[in-house]
Amino acid sequence: MRPIALKGKSLVLVDQTKLPLELRFVRCKSVRDVVKAINTMQVRGAPALGVVSALALAMVAAKSRARTARALLEELEAAAEKIKRTRPTAINLFAGLERVLAAARGAKGGLAQMKKVVVAEAKRVEKENAEANKRISELGASLIPPGATVLTHCNTGPLACGDHGTALGAILEAWRRGNRIRVIATETRPLLQGARLTAWELKREGVPVRVIVDGAVGGIMKRGLVDLVMVGADRITLRGDVANKIGTYSLAVLAKAHGVPFYSLAPTSSIDPSLVKGEDIPIEHRDPEEIRLVAGARVLPRGIEALNPAFDVTPAEFITAIVTERGIFKPSEIRKLF
Amino acid sequence: MRPIALKGKSLVLVDQTKLPLELRFVRCKSVRDVVKAINTMQVRGAPALGVVSALALAMVAAKSRARTARALLEELEAAAEKIKRTRPTAINLFAGLERVLAAARGAKGGLAQMKKVVVAEAKRVEKENAEANKRISELGASLIPPGATVLTHCNTGPLACGDHGTALGAILEAWRRGNRIRVIATETRPLLQGARLTAWELKREGVPVRVIVDGAVGGIMKRGLVDLVMVGADRITLRGDVANKIGTYSLAVLAKAHGVPFYSLAPTSSIDPSLVKGEDIPIEHRDPEEIRLVAGARVLPRGIEALNPAFDVTPAEFITAIVTERGIFKPSEIRKLF
Repeated sequence: MRPIALKGKSLVLVDQTKLPLELRFVRCKSVRDVVKAINTMQVRGAPALGVVSALALAMVAAKSRARTARALLEELEAAAEKIKRTRPTAINLFAGLERVLAAARGAKGGLAQMKKVVVAEAKRVEKENAEANKRISELGASLIPPGATVLTHCNTGPLACGDHGTALGAILEAWRRGNRIRVIATETRPLLQGARLTAWELKREGVPVRVIVDGAVGGIMKRGLVDLVMVGADRITLRGDVANKIGTYSLAVLAKAHGVPFYSLAPTSSIDPSLVKGEDIPIEHRDPEEIRLVAGARVLPRGIEALNPAFDVTPAEFITAIVTERGIFKPSEIRKLF
Repeated sequence: MRPIALKGKSLVLVDQTKLPLELRFVRCKSVRDVVKAINTMQVRGAPALGVVSALALAMVAAKSRARTARALLEELEAAAEKIKRTRPTAINLFAGLERVLAAARGAKGGLAQMKKVVVAEAKRVEKENAEANKRISELGASLIPPGATVLTHCNTGPLACGDHGTALGAILEAWRRGNRIRVIATETRPLLQGARLTAWELKREGVPVRVIVDGAVGGIMKRGLVDLVMVGADRITLRGDVANKIGTYSLAVLAKAHGVPFYSLAPTSSIDPSLVKGEDIPIEHRDPEEIRLVAGARVLPRGIEALNPAFDVTPAEFITAIVTERGIFKPSEIRKLF
């Protein structure tokens, strides 16, 4: 099962909103379909968004009726603009688009050649992402002590990354290597990616996993039930601050208070070399209806206000190490990569 | 609207599982009905459980067909045994039963007199609880600076307390005194008492309230949006450790890390003079289905394991003060009350 695949002139995605009760696919045939899939979170996860955005441009090129290279480039740029407006926090989305646009702009030899270059570059983004995640999973697995209980938040497995996974990739890799770990997954309200997706991905491979409500993290750590924390990242700044799913910062503070190591695992494509401080990362605020409705069931009337930031920022000082495909770094070392 | 009322030979309760979408009442005509209402959390909240357990015994006395005082006492003791087996953490439940049983045991003058004594003592428990909560609300209100934003967890208003409320009572009292506060309510998974009940109780009185997911607490505090935290208590030990709804301990650690005052508000009937350390408080673990189902909608298949502690313990060192009807105390001063 591939979570993201360019098939002919369509982009076929696992519908992440339907899991774990149903495994369904959504077929995107237009930029509009892709924008909708991202906005409704049928596809989500920072690395996955980078792959989807690149492959969406390949789809545009494959379907294009443009008669000149110039017209195709305009079409690609217009598509990229629409995709950029979906979600502001994960930098991978922008990076994926920029990679493909830059290749298109640099293409020589006319329309046919530009189409080839665009498709080739999008596939290169996809392949490099898979390789990076594989390496991150291997490096991350080496950080997990034998038999440890790992706590993870949200979802950072193959679904979120297109392949392998980052934090959850490391957990799965440790298990495959024979490390009899156990996992505690926070359910991750409002959209329950931890309960729905992480638990499902772990259970498919037989890894023992227990779901907890997000509020239980402190109590569970105090009882000594957590040996280390592994999460992903939606954007990392030069000083090593990490934006990630809402709840990550609470987790990091609690981990530090209990002496529990806290790792963020992400490809270097999640690093934003234009930002130093985490406070400068744009944080998406999503529809309060996500809080008022749970799995389609109305819990609260519309009249009740809700505050729904989708991400928070964890400052470098709470992070034991950042694991990338280029190595395991202290947050203060991230700057040296640029 | 009275959340708990002895009407004739029935105990009539607001059904807290149906709010805020429906305001419905449940009429308990037997001990079995009361046990069911407590187990399914149609009635919940530590002070409310103390009142319900006392009034349930008054109901038993009022309905009893016992022909001797001795037979009535046995009936009351059997009823108390059944009610005790519902929920282990909130000590108020046990205290309410013990108060009424002690009065019954001390009653002189035969069957009719014992019935009178039981009903009178249960009503005294109810009245004292209301008076204690009123005083706690007044003392707590004095701790809220003008225009402050108060964060609260779970539900500690009239619904949870039978009358007035404790932490939410203080917030409502501050508002009635003209303090233009704002409230942030954590939704409090798994049963969403913060979103469903606290937001509803605040909105009825016009207090501005925004609901957040439990994971958002850290990020919201880091942005400087919280001036103080007020929560209730299910059981307090002699050294001032506080058992309360799961998530409270996370909140307390985060409050301390951000220099935000953290108050626990509860009647002295929530103090357990037989315990010194919080670790000795029995913690209820509830059905994992509460995590797999949200508001009746299935989110996870039964095969996914979940860990569902209903409470956690916050050590005294994270608590700025404990507010009781007898005054505002540092946790270390609780011991002096006994």
